[in-house]
Amino acid sequence: MAGEGQNLTRIGLAGLAVMGQNLALNIAEKGFPISVYNRSTNKVDETVERAKAEGDLPLFGFHDPEVFVQSIQKPRVIIMLVKAGAPVDDTIKTLSVYMEKGDCIIDGGNEWYENTERRAAAMADLGLQYLGMGVSGGEEGARHGPSLMPGGSFEAYKSIEDILLKVAAQVPDSGPCVTYIGEGGSGNFVKMVHNGIEYGDMQLISEAYDVLRTVGKLSNEELHEVFAEWNKGELLSFLVEITADIFTIKDDKADGYLVDKVLDKTGMKGTGKWTVQQAADLSVAAPTIAASLDSRFLSGMKLERLEAAKIFEAGGVTDTLADQAVDKKKLIDDVRQALYASKICSYAQGMNLIRAKSTEKDWDLKLGELARIWKGGCIIRAVFLDRIKKAYDRNSELSNLLVDPEFAKEIVERQSAWRRVVCLAVNSGISTPGMSVSLAYFDTYRRESLPANLVQAQRDYFGAHTYERVDGPGAFHTEWFKLANQLKM
Amino acid sequence: MAGEGQNLTRIGLAGLAVMGQNLALNIAEKGFPISVYNRSTNKVDETVERAKAEGDLPLFGFHDPEVFVQSIQKPRVIIMLVKAGAPVDDTIKTLSVYMEKGDCIIDGGNEWYENTERRAAAMADLGLQYLGMGVSGGEEGARHGPSLMPGGSFEAYKSIEDILLKVAAQVPDSGPCVTYIGEGGSGNFVKMVHNGIEYGDMQLISEAYDVLRTVGKLSNEELHEVFAEWNKGELLSFLVEITADIFTIKDDKADGYLVDKVLDKTGMKGTGKWTVQQAADLSVAAPTIAASLDSRFLSGMKLERLEAAKIFEAGGVTDTLADQAVDKKKLIDDVRQALYASKICSYAQGMNLIRAKSTEKDWDLKLGELARIWKGGCIIRAVFLDRIKKAYDRNSELSNLLVDPEFAKEIVERQSAWRRVVCLAVNSGISTPGMSVSLAYFDTYRRESLPANLVQAQRDYFGAHTYERVDGPGAFHTEWFKLANQLKM
Repeated sequence: MAGEGQNLTRIGLAGLAVMGQNLALNIAEKGFPISVYNRSTNKVDETVERAKAEGDLPLFGFHDPEVFVQSIQKPRVIIMLVKAGAPVDDTIKTLSVYMEKGDCIIDGGNEWYENTERRAAAMADLGLQYLGMGVSGGEEGARHGPSLMPGGSFEAYKSIEDILLKVAAQVPDSGPCVTYIGEGGSGNFVKMVHNGIEYGDMQLISEAYDVLRTVGKLSNEELHEVFAEWNKGELLSFLVEITADIFTIKDDKADGYLVDKVLDKTGMKGTGKWTVQQAADLSVAAPTIAASLDSRFLSGMKLERLEAAKIFEAGGVTDTLADQAVDKKKLIDDVRQALYASKICSYAQGMNLIRAKSTEKDWDLKLGELARIWKGGCIIRAVFLDRIKKAYDRNSELSNLLVDPEFAKEIVERQSAWRRVVCLAVNSGISTPGMSVSLAYFDTYRRESLPANLVQAQRDYFGAHTYERVDGPGAFHTEWFKLANQLKM
Repeated sequence: MAGEGQNLTRIGLAGLAVMGQNLALNIAEKGFPISVYNRSTNKVDETVERAKAEGDLPLFGFHDPEVFVQSIQKPRVIIMLVKAGAPVDDTIKTLSVYMEKGDCIIDGGNEWYENTERRAAAMADLGLQYLGMGVSGGEEGARHGPSLMPGGSFEAYKSIEDILLKVAAQVPDSGPCVTYIGEGGSGNFVKMVHNGIEYGDMQLISEAYDVLRTVGKLSNEELHEVFAEWNKGELLSFLVEITADIFTIKDDKADGYLVDKVLDKTGMKGTGKWTVQQAADLSVAAPTIAASLDSRFLSGMKLERLEAAKIFEAGGVTDTLADQAVDKKKLIDDVRQALYASKICSYAQGMNLIRAKSTEKDWDLKLGELARIWKGGCIIRAVFLDRIKKAYDRNSELSNLLVDPEFAKEIVERQSAWRRVVCLAVNSGISTPGMSVSLAYFDTYRRESLPANLVQAQRDYFGAHTYERVDGPGAFHTEWFKLANQLKM
């Protein structure tokens, strides 16, 4: 095995599943000698093989955790890329016994931010440093340049900044897709919201697809062209790009396109759920992200849906309700606008969620800087993120992306198309939950007066919860029941 | 002070805020001598005064916790009605030192179910029994007959069943609004979901109000008539009844109706938030309840909304978009149907959430029985709950209320009106998030094929998450990127 008895390496990486392997190779390729370790040793050998095959990269594999740790120069830095939860604790246990004061462990997984904070405190007791670093970009991103979201000890961050700056995706004019996020578990938290936003983007794209396919009757060839075209404009993004790609792939098992053979059941791994729960915790409305999560839940109930479809079809509610004659070109243009406007709402929700947490935890997160490091490398990378960065550059205290002058203008221009698409979907029996709730979010946020006065009156009626008045300060309670009964007499 | 040195009472109650006072008076009125205690002694004296004034009821007040506990016959039962969280722990601490093996403490507050389970375990170590009992009905319900949701030790429940059966609301033909819910924290959990459903009902009613007021231009007098009329039919319920009442109350500080002077900011106390978080945890879609919570969040941001309204009005997006000519009578009828259909979706979500938790915790909850005890006493009481009870009587394994034959028929009859209302709202710029997401929930659940195939293809493209196929079992992975690039060459 390479590495033992040789010069010390600059950094270590433990956990050699898809993400770990690729990130290790990336680091080695950028000129940083790296030691790698995995509990199942075949993964170590596999990674070493790949390092040789991909250009004789300075990557050294170890089967023994102690030798692995000792192969790294002090203060040692070890990135873990293992499954969140217990495997992280196990890995820390295995490695930390060989580590020394001043060494640093970095968790690169999708970990719950509070677990990171708990571990950082435990590590501090041992004199070890700890970072929770969100890594986005999937396999490709990890290998050639991910977006990195390191949070925790600033000192620890500085000690590996030179590596991260080179390993991260590089975006012309705005630099490497990494920045020091903030203290504690902020790196994990920001990555969690990134994933929630990713859920939203995927849901909105799938709704656009559904409307175009089901109401617009577009073929896969046409859908490819639409998404490829969209990827040249305001919607230019990794997810729109791969969507265009997907429609080109033929099934190799049967006739037709592969996308039509993929079962409509969506999996998930937890970060979307956490995002929705955190939004509720922080009193931040995040309906677009929540709708994406709910759609995944409902997509999973395929058998129940088949049953329900039968029952309602027997009642005359067919899959698509009215076969409406549509102007394809107009429809495509409307859907593009609805998708873009909904996307603004979704990002506004995610950004507000991050800000609310930052305030709660005193993390002092910079929203514009987060938009910047998402411009490349990660799954949600898009030209759109540059607009968000600029919005926060214009006003770092912006209360909501919707009211940034540029975004407000874009929404105003698109709102008619947005309303047309949602109504078309409603009348066709196509559910567009993401676009619908995004529009409701906009129409709720932009209205001076909501019917919440009635809700508050009800609460005061049955629970004496009191209410405020429109014409002056104070808390008031009315004996609604008594007064109403007097009127009835 | 009454009670000391006299015969022992049957039960005790600690915590004499609004709910506690009224429940204690209710118990006394039903013929069960009761001891009452509160940390602030003036509340004790106030309750004793009320007991005298309201018919010389057998209620005995105590300023000293030890004397209070010792005034109750063994095995002692003490109901606590204090604020959830630390005050519950404090009260338990104060009282339990004087209690003996076999005695029982009942928490009647809106407590997080896991806190109840933690306390039940701690009490069991001391030989004490513990129940978490949801109490719904507000002030009036507590005084004259609430809906009671006791969960925990069955033995403890049996020892006070005779009291609960008399104290609970009585519904002709279906009996007292109480039943043994199940083990552990199930009573609190069921009450939590009840409150989530309550959020949904209130939101949907407020949206109906908003459409009728803003698009239909109905006056408060007309709104009163509409809700009073609705309260004679399928929508007959406490919340519709009090809504009708609310529109009759004139402002006593200025001209006009009070409802128009109530500020559109809605408060909340936590159970709605927990419901949404639990839904995410259990992979149950509960968008109607989530929309209600989000609407409360957004209603609270009054100043931000004022700013946003100015910005978008300057851009031409006025509060109500197009002044559409509407047939008032038709609109009222449509809105009634939309409200009812949305309500079915909301209850379906709540019931499924309870079932999911029941399965997880092995609580064996009876959904039909829960609908029965909600028919009276509580805030969501409604003739509608009898239909839900009957649906579960027909099929206790019903996967979703939507596919019960009766409810399915009702939805089919109402779906056109429902779609009309949602589109009218969308085109008018009125947000009806609850009705919109309910409709999207229906259209998602009833459709055989969702666009989730695209989402799953995307996940496999960038994360190798694999997918299933429509034409057979198995998990598949495709090298989408590679194949797409080959096609591009």
